[in-house]
Amino acid sequence: MGLNIQSGWIISEKEFKKEYIAKSEVIMAIGNGYMGSRATNEESYYNQTRNTFVAGSFNKSNEDEVTELPNFPDITNIEIFIDGYRFTLLDGEIIDFEKNLNLKNGKMLRKITWRSPNDKIVDFEFMRFISLNNLHLIGSKINISSNENIKIKIISGINGQVTNSGAMHFTDGVKRIFDSNILRYTTETLESKINAIVQSSHNILINDKDIEIAATMKMDRRIVNLIYNYDLEANKVFKFEKISTIHTSRDLEYAKCTFEEIKEKAINDIKNYKSMGYDVLFNESEIEWMKYWNDVDIKIDSKDIKDQFAIRFAQYHLRIMTNFEDNRMGIGAKGLTGEGYKGHSFWDTEIFILPFYIYNLPEIARNLLVYRYKTLDGAHNKAIENGYKGAMFPWESAWISDDDVTPLWCGVNVVTGKATKVYSGIKEQHISADIVYAIWLYYTVTKDNDFMELYGYEMIFDIVLFIESRLEYNKDIDRYEVNDVIGADEYKERINNNTFTNNMFKFAMNLGIKYYDELKENNEALLLKINEKVLISNKIESIKEKSNKIFIPEMTKDLIIPQDDTYLSKEIIDLTKYKNQTYIDSIFEDYNIEQLREIQVTKQADVIMLLQLLNNNFSKDIVKANWDYYEPKTLHDSSLSLATHVVMASEVNDIDYAYKLFRKAIDIDLGKNMNSSDKGIHSASLGGIWQSVVYGFAGVKIVNNILSINPRLPKEWNEIEMPLIFNDIELLINLTHEVINVKVIDNEAINVVINGKNIKIQNEIRLVK
Amino acid sequence: MGLNIQSGWIISEKEFKKEYIAKSEVIMAIGNGYMGSRATNEESYYNQTRNTFVAGSFNKSNEDEVTELPNFPDITNIEIFIDGYRFTLLDGEIIDFEKNLNLKNGKMLRKITWRSPNDKIVDFEFMRFISLNNLHLIGSKINISSNENIKIKIISGINGQVTNSGAMHFTDGVKRIFDSNILRYTTETLESKINAIVQSSHNILINDKDIEIAATMKMDRRIVNLIYNYDLEANKVFKFEKISTIHTSRDLEYAKCTFEEIKEKAINDIKNYKSMGYDVLFNESEIEWMKYWNDVDIKIDSKDIKDQFAIRFAQYHLRIMTNFEDNRMGIGAKGLTGEGYKGHSFWDTEIFILPFYIYNLPEIARNLLVYRYKTLDGAHNKAIENGYKGAMFPWESAWISDDDVTPLWCGVNVVTGKATKVYSGIKEQHISADIVYAIWLYYTVTKDNDFMELYGYEMIFDIVLFIESRLEYNKDIDRYEVNDVIGADEYKERINNNTFTNNMFKFAMNLGIKYYDELKENNEALLLKINEKVLISNKIESIKEKSNKIFIPEMTKDLIIPQDDTYLSKEIIDLTKYKNQTYIDSIFEDYNIEQLREIQVTKQADVIMLLQLLNNNFSKDIVKANWDYYEPKTLHDSSLSLATHVVMASEVNDIDYAYKLFRKAIDIDLGKNMNSSDKGIHSASLGGIWQSVVYGFAGVKIVNNILSINPRLPKEWNEIEMPLIFNDIELLINLTHEVINVKVIDNEAINVVINGKNIKIQNEIRLVK
Repeated sequence: MGLNIQSGWIISEKEFKKEYIAKSEVIMAIGNGYMGSRATNEESYYNQTRNTFVAGSFNKSNEDEVTELPNFPDITNIEIFIDGYRFTLLDGEIIDFEKNLNLKNGKMLRKITWRSPNDKIVDFEFMRFISLNNLHLIGSKINISSNENIKIKIISGINGQVTNSGAMHFTDGVKRIFDSNILRYTTETLESKINAIVQSSHNILINDKDIEIAATMKMDRRIVNLIYNYDLEANKVFKFEKISTIHTSRDLEYAKCTFEEIKEKAINDIKNYKSMGYDVLFNESEIEWMKYWNDVDIKIDSKDIKDQFAIRFAQYHLRIMTNFEDNRMGIGAKGLTGEGYKGHSFWDTEIFILPFYIYNLPEIARNLLVYRYKTLDGAHNKAIENGYKGAMFPWESAWISDDDVTPLWCGVNVVTGKATKVYSGIKEQHISADIVYAIWLYYTVTKDNDFMELYGYEMIFDIVLFIESRLEYNKDIDRYEVNDVIGADEYKERINNNTFTNNMFKFAMNLGIKYYDELKENNEALLLKINEKVLISNKIESIKEKSNKIFIPEMTKDLIIPQDDTYLSKEIIDLTKYKNQTYIDSIFEDYNIEQLREIQVTKQADVIMLLQLLNNNFSKDIVKANWDYYEPKTLHDSSLSLATHVVMASEVNDIDYAYKLFRKAIDIDLGKNMNSSDKGIHSASLGGIWQSVVYGFAGVKIVNNILSINPRLPKEWNEIEMPLIFNDIELLINLTHEVINVKVIDNEAINVVINGKNIKIQNEIRLVK
Repeated sequence: MGLNIQSGWIISEKEFKKEYIAKSEVIMAIGNGYMGSRATNEESYYNQTRNTFVAGSFNKSNEDEVTELPNFPDITNIEIFIDGYRFTLLDGEIIDFEKNLNLKNGKMLRKITWRSPNDKIVDFEFMRFISLNNLHLIGSKINISSNENIKIKIISGINGQVTNSGAMHFTDGVKRIFDSNILRYTTETLESKINAIVQSSHNILINDKDIEIAATMKMDRRIVNLIYNYDLEANKVFKFEKISTIHTSRDLEYAKCTFEEIKEKAINDIKNYKSMGYDVLFNESEIEWMKYWNDVDIKIDSKDIKDQFAIRFAQYHLRIMTNFEDNRMGIGAKGLTGEGYKGHSFWDTEIFILPFYIYNLPEIARNLLVYRYKTLDGAHNKAIENGYKGAMFPWESAWISDDDVTPLWCGVNVVTGKATKVYSGIKEQHISADIVYAIWLYYTVTKDNDFMELYGYEMIFDIVLFIESRLEYNKDIDRYEVNDVIGADEYKERINNNTFTNNMFKFAMNLGIKYYDELKENNEALLLKINEKVLISNKIESIKEKSNKIFIPEMTKDLIIPQDDTYLSKEIIDLTKYKNQTYIDSIFEDYNIEQLREIQVTKQADVIMLLQLLNNNFSKDIVKANWDYYEPKTLHDSSLSLATHVVMASEVNDIDYAYKLFRKAIDIDLGKNMNSSDKGIHSASLGGIWQSVVYGFAGVKIVNNILSINPRLPKEWNEIEMPLIFNDIELLINLTHEVINVKVIDNEAINVVINGKNIKIQNEIRLVK
């Protein structure tokens, strides 16, 4: 049972387990960033989740609900009957079964040999992909053959009865058929009024020769299907291609089109795709995947192929969750693979995912930061609503004009009947500083002045204005405090002076001051222009004063940084049982959230996160002391934790432990818990896997604006090879336990710190330990 | 495969066929008129339809959609795991299986012996009922035992993710738990703002002894579940009772309550029911069923037990689709068993269903007519919108204040893209006269003067005012016409002077005139009072004139009554193929609707319907001539056709043919077509089955306001026994081929026409042929 890693590229399921359908649906999901779709089986099962999402197509199902990515009308369902018996893995006999996903080309495949209830042996091959070349295209193909004559019946079409777990998002749509074969279903989101056009067409081939079969139309409420019947001779191959498209009025390319024009374009697209056929369309997509892997592929030579697979798995999913063509949407906490977190963007993007893009595909990182820029109106509104100034970014973001979409209430307590307030939206204020950090990292790595001039400086100043207004003056001790917040550790709600938050605020203010002073010196025209928007000049003195007087909790004599004002005074209990947990949240079997607040227990990297992000600010001793203090107290009950601890375990040179944590981190989605991904993939965790490898085991960081490499491979690994772009210079880094090899593509020169030593690389360098 | 009739009371399915789940869901549906629920299996299957409807709880999912009965949060789903293996009939091995419904007590039962995938033999008994005694109560019970020790896990709760085929009707509700065991889910319809309270509680017994098991709560969006784990020893019996309730703010009994008060009442109800336990609750319901059968049971001694079963099946379903306690809602065309026709009421009620209630439970017939009275505002509005006066009843009705709910458009033509107008709402105008007919029948049978004074006269006058305004004067030939209508036969759209319509209009006008004159003579005070509302006096002369001059299409020399102005001039084709069809609508494989209009082909009883309803107006010769003409041209492609033809075949004394048609009529739901009931039961057809037996084979009709019996039993039958109430006198009629026995309950005297002879019955009469 479970998932098998077949190679560095292929993951497969060899046994069909109906209870764990969701696992392969998510792990093997396909997409192209414009849209994503769970790897559901063609034939339906009662506990399946047929989700297809289009990035940015947010809608509120009902005025009382939070906006979310709606589940689009489904085209993945295809029902097949052999001699009148419905094909399902729950009937007849499964003689041979494999379902797999190939990360290299984004192809989902099922190969099944099935004995039908009337004892015919039938071979099926099911293939599906979402094109990386044609954003609107979903291709599906089924090959059927048998050593006996069989009667095949296929029902295929478009099903608009989909909801998000019961929440309806679309109107009852309009059904059309063109050329007796192309089905179209047009509908509209209820609140955001996005027009959606879903189309499907079919090609049928016998032994690769096109044939025409007259189909019967079968309609139901919100459903339009075609039924095909064919008597297949023994040993011939019946190939059924379903070419489908999704277009919407929210698509950037149709921003200026009328609905009629989009429909015209859509019908032309599908006619064109249909005539090209599945194989050509798939090849086009495969070529785009090759280009992607050429840009980002990290090769890991490990004793366990799973490590190689895991980093590619992360990069595959990061690709399919990110819309490369449109900077008006962020990345969902579950990508486009499930309804979890409603498609909203969190700090997951800036802190966990962005580094991958910054170092590999900086133009995509830029897109994602521009997305934040486009949500500034909402950040201003949120600041005003909370009595602050500047840009207070929402904890959860959706469409650029949606403002704050964090739910305020999480329903009533089922026992007491009292409404339960969600504090993350109001109290997790570090996100604004996290965005400053991401801009700093982006700029430091890319030197993209154009971005800074158009967006970066303005965003930073705007956020710093928020922080300036947010700080609370404690006149008794002449310092500025940040009280009543939630830090990174969500087990501690509404605490004062969370170190992570205060440090990040200080970092942001200092960066703002630095950039202000630099601009004042070098580009006052730009500063004046920005100042027209964000009025930074009036406040710069105050910012400087506050950045000096912001309270940074003092270390103990043992160098321990207090997580907040009271953490270190709380009870210490034996956490062994929970540290050894195989499922998260096991501590809740013994303690409730109120009790957890009174214990020195941490859900996820908090102080440790600070040590990672602002690593230049803390000495090795401090890092080690806090690592030793906090790691045993951190339960990693959030998927946003392990990767940070991998990096910091590497920093304190406990590589065995780092590797152990890395294996746990990759198991968040790829492990034995077959339900861990039911609601979708863990986006931040995937970005974290990349950081584990690059920041952790390769020891990549920035020291004084220079790229630093300090490899410390786990003993299980022989070699890592990774591409990186730094200051617009492409590098290929190859690391073994003995050799560090850095190759500069395009023969440019670059200064790099390797194992602490400044080295200028002209072409390629090879250092042997 | 298929359904087996076990006895006169029990229908069963002996083999589980997953493709035909909908058939048993509908045929074995349970209900009490307040609510109804499909007989879904406890464990889920991908193609199930879990529908639970509450009569009258109409809501519009979206402003563009038509109001419909929403599917209520589900409590029927219970998932069971044995030793970790999910119980499903698609896994393991079915050693023994039976699903059945007992009409006598409304109990749905499944008995299954199952071999689990790990080779344990487990016996299951699943029972469910909706109480006829406690309107809000749904009881469910599962007995599990094995000859080995087994680990049982049960997941049971409330699922609010339900929709009507994708159309959402309820808000995301509020979940509560009381006493660690009672679950409550409160929600609200989106447009009609009806509060719904759905509750479930559980009792667990081992060998009939109550035990307490701590349950774990499992929540999801719109879902609240409890999970129970229990290690059952071999040969002990684990009994799991799920006691659930539904209450709404639309319930008549809570009309004056606040939502808080209803919630209070609901929680008290379920606590009470839970403490009573399944068996006691079921017994209470069973007693109510006994009373019902005592009132209505028709006994048929036939060569085929199916005939006996079929009449009870009709009466069972008529009971569970009719809310006996509330006259603010009608009967849905599919009862409460499916989404078909959206729970709307049509002429099906007045013409097909009402006779059963009039002759057996007149107070319920009265309720249903009062429902129409309560929709008069909508009927007035419809008249005004169409430029008429008086009460023009809508073709489709829902909640009393909903006005006309007939859809105006049935979506665009998929090929042409043009919107398709639905003409039934505008053109099927006979429904208003059908209501007059129903009032006449009700009054004639019951002599309920109170009803007439409060509602009946007013409704008739109001409808007659509509008809008066509706008639079109053809001054060339000095007659009144009714052009551009749809008659009973829906294959002929927008025709002129449909005989059925014109005759029914004339009947209504004449009845109005008669009652007007009688009231003027005997109760002018009442007439004046009614006239304040409906202004009949001003128009009475005009009505009299028009009733004399309304065009009644003339018979041909062969006594054929033309169905409309042009029917008899249309082409006559060989319809043999379609008359022999095994599925309806087969003619559409060869002709489209436009072509059908040009052929002498009839979808459903039209002229024949007229001959049945106004049987006193037509001589035997006319009936015979038209029977011979129209029956061969009628395809019975509507379920509102066969029963009428059974009655008229009996009238022309072709009893063999009548019986043949009767068998077809009962097969509409009980026949071999396993998909015929997917969207719900055929309500009108069930009323028609009663008419087939009582009007057809027993030859019951009214002649000069006197009850007439003229039995003509099919040779396959030995005996019929039926209760009837006529003029408030209860009769028990027993008929064989040789003997007619009529017993008067309560020893009152009554005049009855038997085989054409007036007979006064004092006590009991026995006539031998």
